Amino acid sequence: MQQAIAILDSGVGGLTVAKEIMRQLPREKVIYFGDTARTPYGPRTSEEVIHFTEQIVDFLVQFDPKVIVIACNTATAAALEHIKRKVDIPVIGVIHPGARAAISATKTANIGVIGTVGTINSGAYTEALKQLSPYVHVESLACPALVPLVEQGDFRSEHAKNTVETSLSRMKEFPIDTLILGCTHYPFLTDCIKEVMGPGVKLISSADETARETSTILHDKRKLATIEDTPVHQFFCSGDPEMFQSIARSWLGEQIKNTPVVWQVSKML
Amino acid sequence: MQQAIAILDSGVGGLTVAKEIMRQLPREKVIYFGDTARTPYGPRTSEEVIHFTEQIVDFLVQFDPKVIVIACNTATAAALEHIKRKVDIPVIGVIHPGARAAISATKTANIGVIGTVGTINSGAYTEALKQLSPYVHVESLACPALVPLVEQGDFRSEHAKNTVETSLSRMKEFPIDTLILGCTHYPFLTDCIKEVMGPGVKLISSADETARETSTILHDKRKLATIEDTPVHQFFCSGDPEMFQSIARSWLGEQIKNTPVVWQVSKML
Repeated sequence: MQQAIAILDSGVGGLTVAKEIMRQLPREKVIYFGDTARTPYGPRTSEEVIHFTEQIVDFLVQFDPKVIVIACNTATAAALEHIKRKVDIPVIGVIHPGARAAISATKTANIGVIGTVGTINSGAYTEALKQLSPYVHVESLACPALVPLVEQGDFRSEHAKNTVETSLSRMKEFPIDTLILGCTHYPFLTDCIKEVMGPGVKLISSADETARETSTILHDKRKLATIEDTPVHQFFCSGDPEMFQSIARSWLGEQIKNTPVVWQVSKML
Repeated sequence: MQQAIAILDSGVGGLTVAKEIMRQLPREKVIYFGDTARTPYGPRTSEEVIHFTEQIVDFLVQFDPKVIVIACNTATAAALEHIKRKVDIPVIGVIHPGARAAISATKTANIGVIGTVGTINSGAYTEALKQLSPYVHVESLACPALVPLVEQGDFRSEHAKNTVETSLSRMKEFPIDTLILGCTHYPFLTDCIKEVMGPGVKLISSADETARETSTILHDKRKLATIEDTPVHQFFCSGDPEMFQSIARSWLGEQIKNTPVVWQVSKML
């Protein structure tokens, strides 16, 4: 049986990563787990986030995946190193890919990062950016109001626009030329964020960069799929499967036309 | 002593990769070898290119590098797998990074590739692109007149512009939206190439992408440098060191202000 790429997130945000992985690696099968019953992870303690991430990884390793992608910045910041030590397969987070892409993109070395309270307070982006280059200046801002918008499927309403504008107002004061969307939920709000930040700021999506990095790591380990058939993906969530399915269908569209249902997993929790 | 990133090329083209590695990974020390006495590699047989690449790798491993970057598309196409089997450290080529970036960038799945006769005839880009996605359509074109321009330091003259225009005329007939500069010499000619191809075609530079991929692989292997000092790079070439030095200084500028000289290596050949 074809080994899959396992992707996990606190909810639907990781679907932005899944979409890019399906687009950039269309031969690969994806198994996705969204912890929609316990979203958002942003305000939780890192102990809680580590515990939840471990539970989901325990569930996913049953499928013998070739790689695990922690498609959640909060979980990457809290649990990536922990999970890397725990399992014997490659584990990819979303923070270093975003940091690398931002350093590649910036011309002025002034980089902004927005994320959940957990991600921003961890300092993980600043650390990753400074590890690569001591010359960058980093401005960070927590935007706790954005994930709830996305989990409710509200991406373009007046309310969504106002919430994005208010959340980003402090970031607009800094002379950044590159902004890392340091939460996998934020690409759902790209249009609003672009409008608020203006054309002089390049947005870096963890989703795009993490998909490329997954491709790089699978290639390095000689684990890229070679099959000719269109893979059939699998989706699991811990909360209401109908809400999840509705967001997944609208975001992924054609890419999951062969995927019949979303399975709700509750026993593990 | 700090382990270096070793970079090799048929001549000065790999300096485009070196520049991006120095920019994206400013803590890393670079050791560069340009085989300027035997450039261009493009028209040579693959046996010759493998033999030359092996000789250079034998030279470079004396410095105990942490990774070897084959910053030459012709050498990557002919010798990457060969060198990977030969040495016990990570070896990165320039073809897969470019392919990955092109697939990430294209909206229409119509991708063009330009390179040397050796690179294009090897079919290595088409193979790498198709391995990732069966849905892309690839147009390839050999442009043998471009490397000699760059090795002579002629990037912007009327003659250079006309040569680029003539070389690319067949590629302009195809409805591509993404063009892979499948030779590390070509970024020197970016301005001319951009003018000829127009604003609707995104150019993918092996240099930028290979630097990011080097960063990803070093991070995965926990080999990123942590030192605080500015590293002192080293340059070697097999031909005229003055021509090499002049091109290196004009291309790298500030990045090599601590590097006093280029060493000419001829005994190995």
